[in-house]
Amino acid sequence: MASKANTLLIGCGGIGTISALNLEVGGRAAVTAVLRSNFQEVSRKGFDIRSVDHGIVKGFKPTKILNAIPNVARDDLTPYKYVICTTKNYPDVPPTVVDLLRPAVTPGYSVVVLIQNGLNIEKPLLAAFPENVILSGVSFCGSHEIASGEILHEDSDKLFVGAFRNPTLDPTLEDLEAQEFTTIYGAGGKCIAEYQPDVGFTRWRKLLYNACLNSICAITDLDTGRLQLADGMVENLARPAMEEIRAAAKAFGHDLPADLVDFMITMDPITMYNPPSMQVDVRKGRFIEFENIVGEPVREGTSRGVPMPILTVYYHILRSLQWKLKEKKGLVTIPAPFDHTNTSS
Amino acid sequence: MASKANTLLIGCGGIGTISALNLEVGGRAAVTAVLRSNFQEVSRKGFDIRSVDHGIVKGFKPTKILNAIPNVARDDLTPYKYVICTTKNYPDVPPTVVDLLRPAVTPGYSVVVLIQNGLNIEKPLLAAFPENVILSGVSFCGSHEIASGEILHEDSDKLFVGAFRNPTLDPTLEDLEAQEFTTIYGAGGKCIAEYQPDVGFTRWRKLLYNACLNSICAITDLDTGRLQLADGMVENLARPAMEEIRAAAKAFGHDLPADLVDFMITMDPITMYNPPSMQVDVRKGRFIEFENIVGEPVREGTSRGVPMPILTVYYHILRSLQWKLKEKKGLVTIPAPFDHTNTSS
Repeated sequence: MASKANTLLIGCGGIGTISALNLEVGGRAAVTAVLRSNFQEVSRKGFDIRSVDHGIVKGFKPTKILNAIPNVARDDLTPYKYVICTTKNYPDVPPTVVDLLRPAVTPGYSVVVLIQNGLNIEKPLLAAFPENVILSGVSFCGSHEIASGEILHEDSDKLFVGAFRNPTLDPTLEDLEAQEFTTIYGAGGKCIAEYQPDVGFTRWRKLLYNACLNSICAITDLDTGRLQLADGMVENLARPAMEEIRAAAKAFGHDLPADLVDFMITMDPITMYNPPSMQVDVRKGRFIEFENIVGEPVREGTSRGVPMPILTVYYHILRSLQWKLKEKKGLVTIPAPFDHTNTSS
Repeated sequence: MASKANTLLIGCGGIGTISALNLEVGGRAAVTAVLRSNFQEVSRKGFDIRSVDHGIVKGFKPTKILNAIPNVARDDLTPYKYVICTTKNYPDVPPTVVDLLRPAVTPGYSVVVLIQNGLNIEKPLLAAFPENVILSGVSFCGSHEIASGEILHEDSDKLFVGAFRNPTLDPTLEDLEAQEFTTIYGAGGKCIAEYQPDVGFTRWRKLLYNACLNSICAITDLDTGRLQLADGMVENLARPAMEEIRAAAKAFGHDLPADLVDFMITMDPITMYNPPSMQVDVRKGRFIEFENIVGEPVREGTSRGVPMPILTVYYHILRSLQWKLKEKKGLVTIPAPFDHTNTSS
């Protein structure tokens, strides 16, 4: 049995905690988790988890927990074999993922695993870490932190792993690293971890759900159940947007089967009234990941001549929501109001 | 001097009260106003109005006020020469405008004046009142009821009047009635009342603002100032939607000048941070007039082969907002939620 891989996991919310649990349960990784808002709570009593895959888990603690990202070189720490990032990814709001990960990544050694949604998320990382393998993790897992340190894991964890292509590295090595990580992640047998070498296909496939249903639910504040119930929403808002994603994916050589559209629309049972993560973020006044989930697919698709008028509208509406939140948080300032009524009468 | 025209005005909020005031000030109409939520308050002390056109007006009372729509035939009342409707118009939520007006309209005598936005609002009225002249009032007037019986009138009242074409009546008579009403409305000299015989042009012109800016502000909850400030909103959400309206108007023979687009976008000064009425309605949890303001233009335009993908998206998003409100108010019922987490683990 190999020794446990020294693993850093950044972003220990709903998805990240289940990842940490699977890695620890498998016995092939020792996870150091970086916590933020829940650090105090979890230091004291661990995570309380109610999971479809693991059952009731009381007081789960990863091998180590930290309240800040470690600086490996400066503090002469043991380098991390895996640096896993399960945070949200919004390139339009600092800090960027690269800024976040940089102190933890050992050049030429660490394997960076991005368990995040969207397209082109690897681009800034390939530029920042040209000697490191960067893996793609596409997660299908319904899990939420319902209170500090309390995780409700409702939908089984399925993780699809592949390697982003780093032009300076040997693709064979990258693929081996992807396979190795897949094995380590799935070693506990409580989740599905699958090696999917065609990262592009896997990501475009998930975008069918994320770019479209996430967007529509975030914009309209209809959950996926109400989206199916309200007159005309599926036919006029969901389906044509999803066909734009299929057309864009096709322009990049990824043939997403037509019946995936209905599969995705009806994936969440109506009476579950499930709000997708972006809708939850809007409701909670949190930033949304609209640039990689909607912006990049639109930019990529239109760059190849695919008409994407509907997703373009969604993109700009989501952009307006982000702008409003930035204004609220003081990241954007606007001129003071002027009482125009005083000028007349 | 002619005797005062017996006039009924239904919908005495921000716009309706200013209409009542102009009609009374002109001395050519005696206005009976039908009030709802503000009836008690206004019976007691009248309207308090702060107006760009009229200055400070304390305790304004129309000639008569009622708390319900009168039934002229049943109660043997003096017939109304004018029945003016300044309520919101949402055909998808009962009661319809026809249902509202029917008891007050004397067939073959009353002139119905619709001071309301949108396209095809006359259709159900022409069917219900085939012997009556139906006038179009397109109002440019910024006025709000900021508290019960308290009116803040910020933007001058400009009313454009013309006749909808009733196939059973003589167009010359209709036009004379439109001119007569225009004269009566403007007789006080405190507003602009203009006879515009080309009702279609006037309505499509206003749709340039209403179908587009109203929709976008209602959907994004950006006011017209923030719409101009937030990155990309004017170029990507407003302008292309307005070009769709121009194209649809053109298909109906109405040539809206290109520079109207910028005129409308910058009409409200940025630092006024003005929320258009539909945005105010969404914020206050009130129904929105999206069917006549967005739905009909989209249906009319596309029926003549004009591509309107952007406004079609706005239409369905607005439709989703209306649906949610109907659900909230119990006009729509949905299946009970089911706890799908109990089925596994």
